Amino acid sequence: MDYVVGLDIGTTSTKGVLYDKTGLIISQAHQGYPLYREANGLAEEDPEIIFQAVVTVLQTVFQAVKNKHAVRAIAFSSANQSLMALDQNRQPLTRLMTWNDTRASKYAQQLKASLLGAKIYEQTGTPLHPMSLLCKLLWLKEERPQIFQQARYYCGIKEYVLYRLCGVWQMDLSVASCTGLFNIQQQQWDPTALNLAKIEQNQLPPVVAAQTQFSGLKHQYAQIIGCPVDITFVQGAFDGALSNLGVGALDEQSVAMTIGTSGAVRILTKQPIIDSQQRLFCYLLDATHYVVGGPVNNGGIVLQWARDNLLDVQAAETQDAYASLMQVAAKAPVGANGLLFLPFLNGERAPLWNAQARGSFVGLSALHTRADMIRAVLEGVVYNLYSVYQAVSEVGVTAQQIILTGGFVQSHLGCQIVADIFDQAVVVPLDFESSCLGAAVLAMKSLGWITDFSAVRKFVGPTKTYMPIQDHVAIYQELLPIYQRLSAQLQSEYADIAQFQIRHALTSD
Amino acid sequence: MDYVVGLDIGTTSTKGVLYDKTGLIISQAHQGYPLYREANGLAEEDPEIIFQAVVTVLQTVFQAVKNKHAVRAIAFSSANQSLMALDQNRQPLTRLMTWNDTRASKYAQQLKASLLGAKIYEQTGTPLHPMSLLCKLLWLKEERPQIFQQARYYCGIKEYVLYRLCGVWQMDLSVASCTGLFNIQQQQWDPTALNLAKIEQNQLPPVVAAQTQFSGLKHQYAQIIGCPVDITFVQGAFDGALSNLGVGALDEQSVAMTIGTSGAVRILTKQPIIDSQQRLFCYLLDATHYVVGGPVNNGGIVLQWARDNLLDVQAAETQDAYASLMQVAAKAPVGANGLLFLPFLNGERAPLWNAQARGSFVGLSALHTRADMIRAVLEGVVYNLYSVYQAVSEVGVTAQQIILTGGFVQSHLGCQIVADIFDQAVVVPLDFESSCLGAAVLAMKSLGWITDFSAVRKFVGPTKTYMPIQDHVAIYQELLPIYQRLSAQLQSEYADIAQFQIRHALTSD
Repeated sequence: MDYVVGLDIGTTSTKGVLYDKTGLIISQAHQGYPLYREANGLAEEDPEIIFQAVVTVLQTVFQAVKNKHAVRAIAFSSANQSLMALDQNRQPLTRLMTWNDTRASKYAQQLKASLLGAKIYEQTGTPLHPMSLLCKLLWLKEERPQIFQQARYYCGIKEYVLYRLCGVWQMDLSVASCTGLFNIQQQQWDPTALNLAKIEQNQLPPVVAAQTQFSGLKHQYAQIIGCPVDITFVQGAFDGALSNLGVGALDEQSVAMTIGTSGAVRILTKQPIIDSQQRLFCYLLDATHYVVGGPVNNGGIVLQWARDNLLDVQAAETQDAYASLMQVAAKAPVGANGLLFLPFLNGERAPLWNAQARGSFVGLSALHTRADMIRAVLEGVVYNLYSVYQAVSEVGVTAQQIILTGGFVQSHLGCQIVADIFDQAVVVPLDFESSCLGAAVLAMKSLGWITDFSAVRKFVGPTKTYMPIQDHVAIYQELLPIYQRLSAQLQSEYADIAQFQIRHALTSD
Repeated sequence: MDYVVGLDIGTTSTKGVLYDKTGLIISQAHQGYPLYREANGLAEEDPEIIFQAVVTVLQTVFQAVKNKHAVRAIAFSSANQSLMALDQNRQPLTRLMTWNDTRASKYAQQLKASLLGAKIYEQTGTPLHPMSLLCKLLWLKEERPQIFQQARYYCGIKEYVLYRLCGVWQMDLSVASCTGLFNIQQQQWDPTALNLAKIEQNQLPPVVAAQTQFSGLKHQYAQIIGCPVDITFVQGAFDGALSNLGVGALDEQSVAMTIGTSGAVRILTKQPIIDSQQRLFCYLLDATHYVVGGPVNNGGIVLQWARDNLLDVQAAETQDAYASLMQVAAKAPVGANGLLFLPFLNGERAPLWNAQARGSFVGLSALHTRADMIRAVLEGVVYNLYSVYQAVSEVGVTAQQIILTGGFVQSHLGCQIVADIFDQAVVVPLDFESSCLGAAVLAMKSLGWITDFSAVRKFVGPTKTYMPIQDHVAIYQELLPIYQRLSAQLQSEYADIAQFQIRHALTSD
């Protein structure tokens, strides 16, 4: 039997899965790492720690196979929109600015308010937001001019890791399409955007197709990992696009929704869709597949905050903090007794695109309990994703089902809330690592094992379906308009609040 | 040595204090009782339980004196704006609707929107709010017509308790002035208001001065209490007015502020002051003293909610939940890292006068902790009281100091927050039971022991003063405008949220 590895470099951990030719999971591993955050919007990671995590994960995954040569390829997935500056020897000059680094807010806002910004959005499909590499570069140029002068090259985490492993310097089409520097219509770097960022095309890696194969693993790493030195690598794509592949959401019938640390709503289309209100992204998976949707900052990371700051540890019924959180939430009725939560603890991308947005509880009464608050947090996260889904509907895509992935699906309550708020069937694949499976499928296509992505459907494995409960739907339909009005109304205060927090350097306890 | 007892029938407990002629506390006792609450705004108590608590407290207080005849009077204080309906034998037809029962919201709103309402407010000094007996009677007439038909008499808790103890049927001027049925200019029941409520003057107790003495304690109660059957009673006044007396806030130089279960800002004046914006009350203490100010629903009751719903019991450092709450709050910096809390968990009276108002946290970031949330709760309660104080300033009263009482003063942190948000010296009398002392002072004047209220100043005892810290003041002056804008802005959503909660019968866990 032959095998492939799908490896996903995520925001909080790297995961690797070894699949056989039939899509069966043979072994898997993951390794977490810290995300450094500061009140000024800094959200960085140490690329060296991530590189080591990748090596460790591959090492663990390979231990499960006797005949290492039977592993025919390692394909990569990664979070998009990370940036690091390198010197002429491709040595890091910075840590990795991740997608959720918002220090470039000011530059994003200025650009968004300009006609040039509208043109760039239309050409690149990338919302004008500090996440985009274009805005990050504008920030770097103005706020870290010395580094900007010194920097000979720029790349994201996947390019850096592959360069370290194999000395190959290239970026796939899909990751490139998320940078805000890449023209998705012409499928090449966008001169207008490069010119604005004051960088040259040769400072960025050459762009290759996601299925591109290469080899050249350095001896030292082949030894540590325990794999052949001539092992084949497949460049891969960004995690979101591969996740659609991994769950079989291959056309406009199915919305892929992920609620992991962050969250996203994504649909694969055959043509680019540009939202005139600039709420949605339009990236590429490969030359003929577009990924349209919206990313939200506030997914599971908000539940983690709720676990740390709302849960009464003593009263928790189990040792598992998440399970306790869900048990407590389940004690509150549908609609959390009319308590509303806006989940913008980390600013928000879609649908607000406001890095200064902040979270709120509104509607607290003396009769509300911890259970209501925790349930409201769950519901608020889902209301927000529903607002993104509404935007997708407004540009003309009407899906028949939601395919839900990410850590959130481990809660039945969470899945039912999605079905009830979306008033849609929610299909949950029981294998969680959809980005790894997507990367593996890409490798299989690259290796010629399959001819079409639709082959993935037989790999997806068993699913569980949640149907909306109409009594619940009715309650959410009462609360959604209130949520949406609050969401619009509070926007006017976020700038002052965020500025206070930055001025007074918000510190964690 | 001769003694007097000051007894205060509060919302959550009855307290009694035995003072000697010099104002020294000889003994004290208190007894709590339940407040029944429901989502529709019901907030009732059982008058029988309260009556028993009064008897028990008096019994305990009297145990400290050998010569029971040396106790020369028992003077009464009570929460205002409570209502119960009685039949022709003065048997209760209802439980006690307390000041925080908001079922009459609709009638208050209708009245507030009318010219008649403005006229009644001007004549009675009582804000048009469900707390007022006028609005409660309108509710009773429409929603409980059978009881309204049956009811021969109406009174509040103090009148009922004194009737039960002594068979005396009367109401003091001060309690009468809070009903919304009493003309404070002419100092008699207001025919316009009585007519609107469709009741006759003879359904209400005759109005007497606060210092009125009487006796007639029934044998059975004299026996239980262990006091002479001919003991003198002094009718007393409502708790807020007596609290001003008890802390020596006798003129416009001093604002008396209480943060107990609820809260209030009160100033004694020699003339009535009617706020054209209807934010403030103007009640009577006696025929020549007016009490101007604003009551807030959301005082210590909000801290109690925070203790039950935000505190991590396991992580708490002491067994005392309040002390833990304050210890946790102290870990957060001044301004709670820019997290704002609107404390309207119980609707709000001054300054919003909106029974449908609800509480909110706004400005939550992922870096905020439990400590920030708890500190924000403390600060929010004080921001709200500051807004009432601003209204008092706007009608022309400029005080030199805040005299602060109520359970809140047991926290040094709480007192310092008041000083910093108000940017004023805060004087805290170290004896807490100011309403009891006020009642006792009333008794002393009635008995001729003192000739003027100013004598109270030597009874108040030691005080502790908190001065504003200018660095803190600067931070609060940044946050106050945001708080006030949020407070105004969120008003538009409260009706829909409150209606949802009532429709779906908000239940506690």
